[in-house]
Amino acid sequence: MRMVDIIEKKRDGHPLTEEEIRWFTTEYSAGNIPDYQASALAMAIYFQGMTDEEAGALTLEMAKSGDQLDLSAITGTKVDKHSTGGVGDKTTFILGPLVAALDVPVAKMSGRGLGHTGGTIDKLEAFTGFETEISQEQFIELVNKNKLALAGQSGNLTPADKKLYALRDVTATVDSIPLIASSVMSKKIAAGSDAIVLDVKTGSGAFMTDEDDARALAKAMVDIGNSIGRDTMAVISDMNQPLGRMIGNALEVKEAVETLKGEGPADVHELSLTLAAHMVVLGGGAASAEEARDLLEKAIQDGSAIEAMKTFIAAQGGDPSAVDDPELLATAKDRVAVPAPSSGYVTEMHAAQIGQAAMLLGAGRATLDDEIDHAVGIELEAKIGHYVHEGDTIAWLHANKDDTTAIRTMVQEAYTFSDQQPDARPLIFDTIH
Amino acid sequence: MRMVDIIEKKRDGHPLTEEEIRWFTTEYSAGNIPDYQASALAMAIYFQGMTDEEAGALTLEMAKSGDQLDLSAITGTKVDKHSTGGVGDKTTFILGPLVAALDVPVAKMSGRGLGHTGGTIDKLEAFTGFETEISQEQFIELVNKNKLALAGQSGNLTPADKKLYALRDVTATVDSIPLIASSVMSKKIAAGSDAIVLDVKTGSGAFMTDEDDARALAKAMVDIGNSIGRDTMAVISDMNQPLGRMIGNALEVKEAVETLKGEGPADVHELSLTLAAHMVVLGGGAASAEEARDLLEKAIQDGSAIEAMKTFIAAQGGDPSAVDDPELLATAKDRVAVPAPSSGYVTEMHAAQIGQAAMLLGAGRATLDDEIDHAVGIELEAKIGHYVHEGDTIAWLHANKDDTTAIRTMVQEAYTFSDQQPDARPLIFDTIH
Repeated sequence: MRMVDIIEKKRDGHPLTEEEIRWFTTEYSAGNIPDYQASALAMAIYFQGMTDEEAGALTLEMAKSGDQLDLSAITGTKVDKHSTGGVGDKTTFILGPLVAALDVPVAKMSGRGLGHTGGTIDKLEAFTGFETEISQEQFIELVNKNKLALAGQSGNLTPADKKLYALRDVTATVDSIPLIASSVMSKKIAAGSDAIVLDVKTGSGAFMTDEDDARALAKAMVDIGNSIGRDTMAVISDMNQPLGRMIGNALEVKEAVETLKGEGPADVHELSLTLAAHMVVLGGGAASAEEARDLLEKAIQDGSAIEAMKTFIAAQGGDPSAVDDPELLATAKDRVAVPAPSSGYVTEMHAAQIGQAAMLLGAGRATLDDEIDHAVGIELEAKIGHYVHEGDTIAWLHANKDDTTAIRTMVQEAYTFSDQQPDARPLIFDTIH
Repeated sequence: MRMVDIIEKKRDGHPLTEEEIRWFTTEYSAGNIPDYQASALAMAIYFQGMTDEEAGALTLEMAKSGDQLDLSAITGTKVDKHSTGGVGDKTTFILGPLVAALDVPVAKMSGRGLGHTGGTIDKLEAFTGFETEISQEQFIELVNKNKLALAGQSGNLTPADKKLYALRDVTATVDSIPLIASSVMSKKIAAGSDAIVLDVKTGSGAFMTDEDDARALAKAMVDIGNSIGRDTMAVISDMNQPLGRMIGNALEVKEAVETLKGEGPADVHELSLTLAAHMVVLGGGAASAEEARDLLEKAIQDGSAIEAMKTFIAAQGGDPSAVDDPELLATAKDRVAVPAPSSGYVTEMHAAQIGQAAMLLGAGRATLDDEIDHAVGIELEAKIGHYVHEGDTIAWLHANKDDTTAIRTMVQEAYTFSDQQPDARPLIFDTIH
């Protein structure tokens, strides 16, 4: 097999065979195919796309390119959730205890990651002593015992995907739906999930700003998952404004805890319940999403959800006192008001820009070497549909730095005000099976 | 400037600025842009094309990437000819003396090249003592004196094109009209041409098998040339069968000499006169192609064309006796008849396959290290439109190897026979200014 023939075949719009995809993935991982041929193939895929069969084959081959977790010793169907990422998204954090409270096992692998806030691990480290570097045996034992455990990503998962992704990043070939879909799904499969719930976000703070693109990506991932025997479904959710009121590490932990107690913002509650219900159904804990939802609401009301959170934190060495007393979490030096620059209804929010502002406060990492400040972030007072008067506080900066002038302006400019009240818009656009 | 932004811009269908093209060409030649980004850009160009302005800028930048010949010391307008290549094409060889006989200067740079026969230099070496390794001073002096000289390509011409072409060759990005056009034109410009006549061939033995593609390539090259101040025109000519009767090095020299004496095959004569007439017009030797043609026919009839050939060969140290006595040229051991496998009109010929057969006899090089056998080749008896009876000789192999069975079959299979006489087809499809 010659790589130039494979590139030409794709360039001319012909689907590649499973064998060709296997050969490419194996030889590219092994360093036998140069990057300049892989990038030409990626660009040809950008223009010509991939069939479901091709994307499925690429996903499986990338999953097989490195270690694959064997979670078969965990009783029950392991359901994982993946979000395409958004500003203020603390659902991962809420879903674990919520689903575990219904005895559906959640075996979560997580990373630290780059972005406007830290990853799930960074956030959980808000609880003193919490440890994610646990052995696979401990991990499995904890899931079997408590139905929930979280481990830092270890081992060499999907090296082919890592290598290809790094190449795509510098060759303008990231924005290809089949390549994004196979990248995401290969990681989920290598991490041992039996079933997958996807939260594909769309809007000003999402990777997919356009709803049709989000739908196409969701469909591609669902098709890949189902074609390779993993029960997969997706929800298309709104990211035209940050989710909830809090952006930042300790701030998001606080909001997650509130939500598990039934006291969180409506959007966080709604999205968490929706995703958790789908996870429970795929995990066999309920016959329908409606039934699952009732059970989940009950788990919040009777305190079993927040208890599951405490058990989980304690089991991994953390001090769960902050669950009962959120004042124990890290607090920033200043809480700086951001005034509304004019009066009117909030009609739009540039969510990504608010995320960027949180990152400038120190909540996120630009490079893997950056230190995260757990205490800082943004607390939103006004969101889309709210009416404000000029000078009203629309947001608070939780800051440890003295000069926040530029960041305040950035937050102000992320808001659009108008005399016209905007139409209400849905939080969940669609559900794709 | 970041390469990834340039790739993305082209990927999204936006034209690149002159500055961006200059930056890419300079930095890529200098080794500051990795091949994996250059190949992604080439694939994006494959899909999105280039405007005339972009292709012109790329041509100039590639021409400027290395040495540029300064031929300003040559009196008159230097007209070069370029052919996109075909089987049995010995026109370069004929045009030099023909145009020089009309006092229009021809300063030809040539290479050895790969293909079914050797390059122009290989063919001229059929004349004992002929030397192409001459200094630039000698070269200019000879052109001024005799209006014709030929030098082997020396120096570091268009290194950016060489590097990019080698990359395109292994990334399935050769077949892009703006990239082919800029590659050809950059070499002509670096070689110092003032005006350029292009022979773009189309058909079974051409790089562009499709006539529309050939026309698009011709138009792209003409537009580039004219946009950067070089008088450029193109002829689209037929390559559905080999040109003339001879394929091979000494065999083609013989046919060229015959043509310069007015005794060559009609197609070789016609194409040579057409191209030469355009060269003479661009070189200021005649007011119209018709006038140039009359003068050229006269140069053949009065012997001044063949005299120019002899002067040229002798001036570069060669023995011109073979011009008067072609029997002095290298001759193969055997002349093997290829019989017609059936009766009928020749309706089609697979020209590339006949070229391949000549190469298997030893007339061409597959790699630059291969030795060429000047004596061997193929002499065609039957061409399109001829009627043959089964067993008639359709071609002769001039061979130095004993077993030519497979090559005979290959030549037979390159012919298509039918009871129906094919329609006559033109040799020149179009002229593009």
